[in-house]
Amino acid sequence: MEHLAEQYLDVRKHTEDICRPLQTEDYVVQPVVDVSPPKWHLGHTTWFFETFVLVPFFRGYQQFNTLYNFVFNSYYETIGARVIRTDRGNLSRPSVEDVYRYRRYVDEQMVLFLENEDIEQTVVDIIILGLHHEQQHQELLCTDIKYILGHNPLFPAYAEKAAVNELLQAGGFVTMKEGVYSIGFEGEGFCFDNELGRHKVYLNEFNIAKGLVTNGDYLEFIKDGGYQNFRYWHAEGWDWVNKQRIQAPLYWHYVDGKWLHYTLSGLQALNTAEAVCHISYYEAAAFAAWKGMRLPTEAEWEVAAEEFQWGKRWEWTSSAYLPYPGFIRAEGAVGEYNGKFMVNQMVLRGASIATPGGHSRKTYRNFFHAMHQWQFTGIRLAY
Amino acid sequence: MEHLAEQYLDVRKHTEDICRPLQTEDYVVQPVVDVSPPKWHLGHTTWFFETFVLVPFFRGYQQFNTLYNFVFNSYYETIGARVIRTDRGNLSRPSVEDVYRYRRYVDEQMVLFLENEDIEQTVVDIIILGLHHEQQHQELLCTDIKYILGHNPLFPAYAEKAAVNELLQAGGFVTMKEGVYSIGFEGEGFCFDNELGRHKVYLNEFNIAKGLVTNGDYLEFIKDGGYQNFRYWHAEGWDWVNKQRIQAPLYWHYVDGKWLHYTLSGLQALNTAEAVCHISYYEAAAFAAWKGMRLPTEAEWEVAAEEFQWGKRWEWTSSAYLPYPGFIRAEGAVGEYNGKFMVNQMVLRGASIATPGGHSRKTYRNFFHAMHQWQFTGIRLAY
Amino acid sequence: MEHLAEQYLDVRKHTEDICRPLQTEDYVVQPVVDVSPPKWHLGHTTWFFETFVLVPFFRGYQQFNTLYNFVFNSYYETIGARVIRTDRGNLSRPSVEDVYRYRRYVDEQMVLFLENEDIEQTVVDIIILGLHHEQQHQELLCTDIKYILGHNPLFPAYAEKAAVNELLQAGGFVTMKEGVYSIGFEGEGFCFDNELGRHKVYLNEFNIAKGLVTNGDYLEFIKDGGYQNFRYWHAEGWDWVNKQRIQAPLYWHYVDGKWLHYTLSGLQALNTAEAVCHISYYEAAAFAAWKGMRLPTEAEWEVAAEEFQWGKRWEWTSSAYLPYPGFIRAEGAVGEYNGKFMVNQMVLRGASIATPGGHSRKTYRNFFHAMHQWQFTGIRLAY
Amino acid sequence: MEHLAEQYLDVRKHTEDICRPLQTEDYVVQPVVDVSPPKWHLGHTTWFFETFVLVPFFRGYQQFNTLYNFVFNSYYETIGARVIRTDRGNLSRPSVEDVYRYRRYVDEQMVLFLENEDIEQTVVDIIILGLHHEQQHQELLCTDIKYILGHNPLFPAYAEKAAVNELLQAGGFVTMKEGVYSIGFEGEGFCFDNELGRHKVYLNEFNIAKGLVTNGDYLEFIKDGGYQNFRYWHAEGWDWVNKQRIQAPLYWHYVDGKWLHYTLSGLQALNTAEAVCHISYYEAAAFAAWKGMRLPTEAEWEVAAEEFQWGKRWEWTSSAYLPYPGFIRAEGAVGEYNGKFMVNQMVLRGASIATPGGHSRKTYRNFFHAMHQWQFTGIRLAY
Repeated sequence: MEHLAEQYLDVRKHTEDICRPLQTEDYVVQPVVDVSPPKWHLGHTTWFFETFVLVPFFRGYQQFNTLYNFVFNSYYETIGARVIRTDRGNLSRPSVEDVYRYRRYVDEQMVLFLENEDIEQTVVDIIILGLHHEQQHQELLCTDIKYILGHNPLFPAYAEKAAVNELLQAGGFVTMKEGVYSIGFEGEGFCFDNELGRHKVYLNEFNIAKGLVTNGDYLEFIKDGGYQNFRYWHAEGWDWVNKQRIQAPLYWHYVDGKWLHYTLSGLQALNTAEAVCHISYYEAAAFAAWKGMRLPTEAEWEVAAEEFQWGKRWEWTSSAYLPYPGFIRAEGAVGEYNGKFMVNQMVLRGASIATPGGHSRKTYRNFFHAMHQWQFTGIRLAY
Repeated sequence: MEHLAEQYLDVRKHTEDICRPLQTEDYVVQPVVDVSPPKWHLGHTTWFFETFVLVPFFRGYQQFNTLYNFVFNSYYETIGARVIRTDRGNLSRPSVEDVYRYRRYVDEQMVLFLENEDIEQTVVDIIILGLHHEQQHQELLCTDIKYILGHNPLFPAYAEKAAVNELLQAGGFVTMKEGVYSIGFEGEGFCFDNELGRHKVYLNEFNIAKGLVTNGDYLEFIKDGGYQNFRYWHAEGWDWVNKQRIQAPLYWHYVDGKWLHYTLSGLQALNTAEAVCHISYYEAAAFAAWKGMRLPTEAEWEVAAEEFQWGKRWEWTSSAYLPYPGFIRAEGAVGEYNGKFMVNQMVLRGASIATPGGHSRKTYRNFFHAMHQWQFTGIRLAY
Repeated sequence: MEHLAEQYLDVRKHTEDICRPLQTEDYVVQPVVDVSPPKWHLGHTTWFFETFVLVPFFRGYQQFNTLYNFVFNSYYETIGARVIRTDRGNLSRPSVEDVYRYRRYVDEQMVLFLENEDIEQTVVDIIILGLHHEQQHQELLCTDIKYILGHNPLFPAYAEKAAVNELLQAGGFVTMKEGVYSIGFEGEGFCFDNELGRHKVYLNEFNIAKGLVTNGDYLEFIKDGGYQNFRYWHAEGWDWVNKQRIQAPLYWHYVDGKWLHYTLSGLQALNTAEAVCHISYYEAAAFAAWKGMRLPTEAEWEVAAEEFQWGKRWEWTSSAYLPYPGFIRAEGAVGEYNGKFMVNQMVLRGASIATPGGHSRKTYRNFFHAMHQWQFTGIRLAY
Repeated sequence: MEHLAEQYLDVRKHTEDICRPLQTEDYVVQPVVDVSPPKWHLGHTTWFFETFVLVPFFRGYQQFNTLYNFVFNSYYETIGARVIRTDRGNLSRPSVEDVYRYRRYVDEQMVLFLENEDIEQTVVDIIILGLHHEQQHQELLCTDIKYILGHNPLFPAYAEKAAVNELLQAGGFVTMKEGVYSIGFEGEGFCFDNELGRHKVYLNEFNIAKGLVTNGDYLEFIKDGGYQNFRYWHAEGWDWVNKQRIQAPLYWHYVDGKWLHYTLSGLQALNTAEAVCHISYYEAAAFAAWKGMRLPTEAEWEVAAEEFQWGKRWEWTSSAYLPYPGFIRAEGAVGEYNGKFMVNQMVLRGASIATPGGHSRKTYRNFFHAMHQWQFTGIRLAY
């Protein structure tokens, strides 16, 4: 299992690398319910390995701190007869240092455990699931850190020079022929349960854009009154725009007649050539309606994925997040992983600049609620 | 247009027939936001014909009362500089008698208008849409009246002897072969825009129940702890069950060790042979999970519809409400009819005992939010 | 007890007289939580006599309908094992006619009961309390009916020609000398328990206005930016103004450059000579601060009451509603009458044009929360 | 001004002493809206001196960071055209270290400023107000730190051995004679504006306890069903108890049949001899009602204060927080200090174990909303 140990340590290290530029205080806060404190991500991913690998399978393992179970599991729990609600953003303890100590302890134990050559395949599978789980949290760490710093009135930069976001945008559309296609995961390697059950779908002829919608394109929509015209919006989207007073993508600021946006390098002039980012499904759908087009379905996206470049933005599709034919929830905790979220969410395909390398596949099904903007989301048009 | 006038008067009369057993006070209240006062249904359906037919197309037409426009259109509006929110349930005026007077006035004008032989087809189409719109409200009148009376501590009956609900339930499952099928409306006659765009779908082999789940079946689920076991539920459904303290279908009451349910004839012993009714999508999906089965997709339902009896319950499908391929919102007010609701709702197929005769088709796509119980909803299993 | 029977019937008749101009629908609605449907007032005052007099003291009395107990008591109650929330505004039944039938039944029984000459004084006291309780609800009927009709977009009039509101306003201030005064009820006749315990207070010299602040005076405050300047407001008042977007007294509407106000005769031009009405404590205090003055305390008001005319507006004082020295809550249900409300409310003194004749005393302590506008409230300045 | 500089540095140092046992993370969180992060207290008290002394009066002063103005002023503010809400608990920056740097900078500047001998008295008055303001925040630091640590499931201790809380409790009651007394501040030295305006009050004879109610006394109330019997409670208190499910003072935990309470030294067995602490006004009033007594008014408390020991608990009085006769809000920012809070709050008298030495007077008027438990509050009975 040497290779697995190496892979394990690689993934674990990358999580900590993401947090390296943070100050202690940045690890602690939770500005909105969807954003978790970085400290919590660090602990929760560690708790996964402790709870699902070490405790049940490593004989003689001593838990680091039994109270961490409900600090990092995030449910209501009781201490004696009184309920303490462990809101993630209210917990000053365990300290950041304690959480890193927890990580080191669990990592050492995991390496010891993995020295054993006779680990059963089911346990290996759980470890690999844990690594993919941690990679998902690596992406959430990026989006949550951006939210925490980008909602601070001092607008601190995360890094002097964050990854260049500008994209080479191919123009035009690809036409895909009508017919029966197959979608869903096949082959070797890891995938989540929601990708399984490769199956046939019948698609009409459709056209899908080679490039993503840019900030410049989106600015046209704003200037044309897109946020003021209910005709482009779903009824729930229109409510959302009005109640939340949405007038632009998240992180855009209109200052002295110019559009700025907060990036991980701080507040900067809006780059019109860059792919639009941090928009909700409602906005993506409204933009497409304004264009007289639509968003692709997830099946269309998947069958055409080799015809265009993807991976810079999570691309909203027009598909609701539902089980594939034959989907069965796994038994036990793993069964809670995906299936229970299959209602009232929309599928996103692709990957984003915040997605860890190797953590993307054309069959990957990401999903969020229609109003969420804080992921690195974008728009690909179809018709 | 004589035939249309007759059809018009028939539909209009049926709406009033539904309200005949009500007392004046029953027309006025709105116990929850999804339920509208019967008075409002009577006015709103009338406003439809006045606004979309008489005002634009009947030369010289005088509006009954210009203020009714925003009473029965249900939006925020301004009277001078101050906004008055016209919450439907807060409006004692116009009185019930005034609303009936409004109906008579509009009906007389419509009949005069329809004496003209030269009405353009587009106007005829709007009138037919208006009649189907009114039939939808006839069904809502039934469900809303039931809610109003069924949430009154006196449990008044709507009718001495309401329609017999007991159903002959066929047993067993039908198996449908894998392959390409077509779904969506075709042929003559009226349909809503969301049914248009007949198109091909690829379906795997599936099995669908000939009968609906009964109250007796559902009682087994309750007795087996179905409402206490999170494993059967979507995460959002589990929240809903716990926050709303749901323990049974709407209108079920557990009194002195026995289950009663409120029917339109009053409170009665639960009939275990009857198809279960007034359940949410969350409950339907949880019941199916408990059975080790699932709900059919809307495509499965439609292609198998001739193999079973339907029409007594709106049957929750596992399909989200999304546009068919090629769906385009119509221009103008009619375009608001369906398309803007195509997010975060689930499709129901069939019809219910509250659906007016003739207002159902196997291609009809009904839709509600996942938590709604107040329609006459039921469960058909698939696997 | 003949005299008491007569008095009883007089009060009871007056309640129904107030409702005579209403349409059936007006009896049913509840636009905001503080406003009760007129039907509920009619039933609740009747329930008082049934529950506290007839049931315990009239041998052989048969309740009209045992379910009315919780319809008109307005709490959560259980029907069997399921809780039905009897929101006052959601109850279409009992019908208005049924409520009047209930009144007639209880009135007949009360008259029969009062024919008996040997009623104990404690029972007489409860009946007299019930009559004063009903008079309080007569005033609430006026304020609630005004709210119901005044928040309807049709602005229906309650009466062709409602009571003339214009007031002769004396000018100037009365100066009261420093010293020890006594306040609280003394002498014969009825008073509420919160007025009892006549006691001494020490007052500094103060000046109190002979007249009330007029609409014209208040308009100056508005024009001077009173609602935009936080310096005049309590912190909670300032929040209230901003969250509720308050810009004028309740029922004022700024239409086409002119101020109108809704009166019981309908929408009319604002009468600047009339005493300002329908303002909250926050507004009264802010107006006084803008004037460089203050509101009188309730003790000041009471000791000066003979120096000015009062009775047209409930006058906000600067006193919180607290027990008088020696105040003891009575045992039993009567003890719930006043004492339990003695926190977070402000005292109003005087009476209003909606107060029934004979239901006012200079020692009467009315009380409402600081944000309430829907009573006939006004401002008397002091310094 | 040497003496003032010394006094200034003393007070400032004490604030930091209170924070010394904290870990960086403890400075950042805000578990409920009434509790501010310690970091914010440190910054806000510093901002007071910068804003009201250095900026207006110290020629050539350079602000430390102009953005701190709205970070530590805690209002909605705009950055360019977008509003950023600076929720205190969401701000990871400025870091704790930056805040201490800010303190050092302002302290150095203040000392330089105070070297000048010719500071006007009005400025001296503002500085002294600032020191008392900081002392108030010292007490809030204690209460907020206790809340933060006491709501963490790890129950960390603030200090190995926190101040001994046990009190020598005198028994019995003192009787005070009826008559005219004077209350309010007089003499030399600092006081807040709300204490000014010494004035006469007339008091009936009353009896006031020499000691405070103990945990043991309070336990009797709990065991006697005090939290289950509505008769002891204000209507709003009863709602609060039921909605918040209050069953004991804050920080009490019933574990395995025993009562523990969280103290600054961690979770400990309840000490029944200690004065009860962390109770709301509603609880204090309910306890008194259960005893057949009442809470003293603030006037009673003040005139009797020399007859008993006080200073361990803030003692709820039965007086609402209202202006003394002749109270005038000061002009400018100082005028916002107290007057605007004079509605819907109750007065507390005395001081607590968390009150800095020298920051208490018998005329001191503390005030909180009736539901607040997180201060070191207690009960003294009267009758």
